[in-house]
Amino acid sequence: MTKRLAYFGPPGTNSEEAALKYALITGDDYELVPVSTITGVGASVVDGSCDEGVMPIENALDGAITETLDFLIHSPKPVFIRGEVISLIEHYLLARPGVAVADVRTITSIATAVAQCRGYIDREFPGVRIEAALSTATAVEEVMARDDAAAIGNKRAGELYGAAVLAKGIQDRSPNHTRFVVVGREDHAPTGDDKTSLAFTYQHSDRPGQLVQALKEFADQGINLSKIESRPSKEKLGTYIFLVDLDGHREDAALADAIETVRANCSFFRILGAYPRYRDDSAGGAA
Amino acid sequence: MTKRLAYFGPPGTNSEEAALKYALITGDDYELVPVSTITGVGASVVDGSCDEGVMPIENALDGAITETLDFLIHSPKPVFIRGEVISLIEHYLLARPGVAVADVRTITSIATAVAQCRGYIDREFPGVRIEAALSTATAVEEVMARDDAAAIGNKRAGELYGAAVLAKGIQDRSPNHTRFVVVGREDHAPTGDDKTSLAFTYQHSDRPGQLVQALKEFADQGINLSKIESRPSKEKLGTYIFLVDLDGHREDAALADAIETVRANCSFFRILGAYPRYRDDSAGGAA
Repeated sequence: MTKRLAYFGPPGTNSEEAALKYALITGDDYELVPVSTITGVGASVVDGSCDEGVMPIENALDGAITETLDFLIHSPKPVFIRGEVISLIEHYLLARPGVAVADVRTITSIATAVAQCRGYIDREFPGVRIEAALSTATAVEEVMARDDAAAIGNKRAGELYGAAVLAKGIQDRSPNHTRFVVVGREDHAPTGDDKTSLAFTYQHSDRPGQLVQALKEFADQGINLSKIESRPSKEKLGTYIFLVDLDGHREDAALADAIETVRANCSFFRILGAYPRYRDDSAGGAA
Repeated sequence: MTKRLAYFGPPGTNSEEAALKYALITGDDYELVPVSTITGVGASVVDGSCDEGVMPIENALDGAITETLDFLIHSPKPVFIRGEVISLIEHYLLARPGVAVADVRTITSIATAVAQCRGYIDREFPGVRIEAALSTATAVEEVMARDDAAAIGNKRAGELYGAAVLAKGIQDRSPNHTRFVVVGREDHAPTGDDKTSLAFTYQHSDRPGQLVQALKEFADQGINLSKIESRPSKEKLGTYIFLVDLDGHREDAALADAIETVRANCSFFRILGAYPRYRDDSAGGAA
């Protein structure tokens, strides 16, 4: 049966590339559904209009995509991470054919893409006006109607919208990987090479003992911690929700025990999901 | 002697308010110097053109200001945090007098201000075009020449540029505090009520034992951890630099010992500074 896979669109975004890759890896039959915001992708899974959704969660240069983290933490009905995809992000500077580098007074894209190319922009376009677009693909579509603007987007967007390439590989460092999570209404069964993501906090998140205790609980069980992140609780400055990625599946005995021990002391605890670790030679050392 | 205090300007930004507050608290004689980017504020201290600089570092709703964190971690010549200020951020929707809510097709501000008002914007202005401005004050200045746009900025910016108030207190939650750090070429002498900020990582930042060991070192010494954050190392996806705020001054005996123990195992270690904890009744529970 064809499943509906939401992604942060329109066609031509890096999220679409990740969604295409995910469909290939799983071998399942997916219809790709573009959604105009990252939060909207998650919401389409919550409300059942899509079965799964692809959300960018972390970039090697720019760090966490906080809109995704906040959705996973705070969505009233939870969604669960059931897969991940790592993509190599190659940013192109694209414009309407005939527009030259010297014509460019405005550069448009999403904030994260601009951040990943900040050094290039400051060096090559000092004083240029930056305009925020809803997605990289939208940015490319928009500059096709302008003669003084360029967009940061990927190669596929350039092809889809008929843009000319002013420069390629303009991100400040390479390789520039982004990790995407695939969310669904339930997470993934154990495969033997999995990760589990958790979000939790304590009534007094500013006291050190409890977080250390939790991390020590995992470390003592030999459970590897591949990521720790914090987000504001949104209640009060200086109070946080901690996000950790652990090696293993939440159903593995040692991890399941550690999770129950940690959960017992938390004022907020949410399993964000358990899912197969991404493996792909094309992602090199990052996978 | 008058000292030069850089802030993320122009006049009318929340950083200017924080700078004015800092000058008041210290009682020193400061000339305020607007700088057009956050990184530029730090750079003006590095190159000696200013003595100190005010940089926003953390918002209660939106989380870390990553441009500031990355400057503190990566600046080739370090600057040191020598003070902090916490401000209550009240966002106003401002426009040219005569422009009504129904006329607004575009809302402009910096991305962090937009993020703090996302719920309000989605509710009151569905489908509105978002434009990125260089600062909240620049956004207000720009909409004074437009009849279809509004800016998110503070009360003072509205007054400075002669804007009309379309709505006030439009942030998604209140109180909405932002913490600013004041950087200089050296940090602050001990005062008895201080904080110390560190950035560090390990050759294998994805192995749990070392981070847990470091946090345990501080916890065992009874040193409170008021914040833990991670930023990408920018080398490879999945490798991080950890940022911690600790109670106490780096010269306090127990903290100095713990720092040396932790530093010995790190592949990167930078003291970001020691500085008096901010205390102000107006910041309420957040101070």
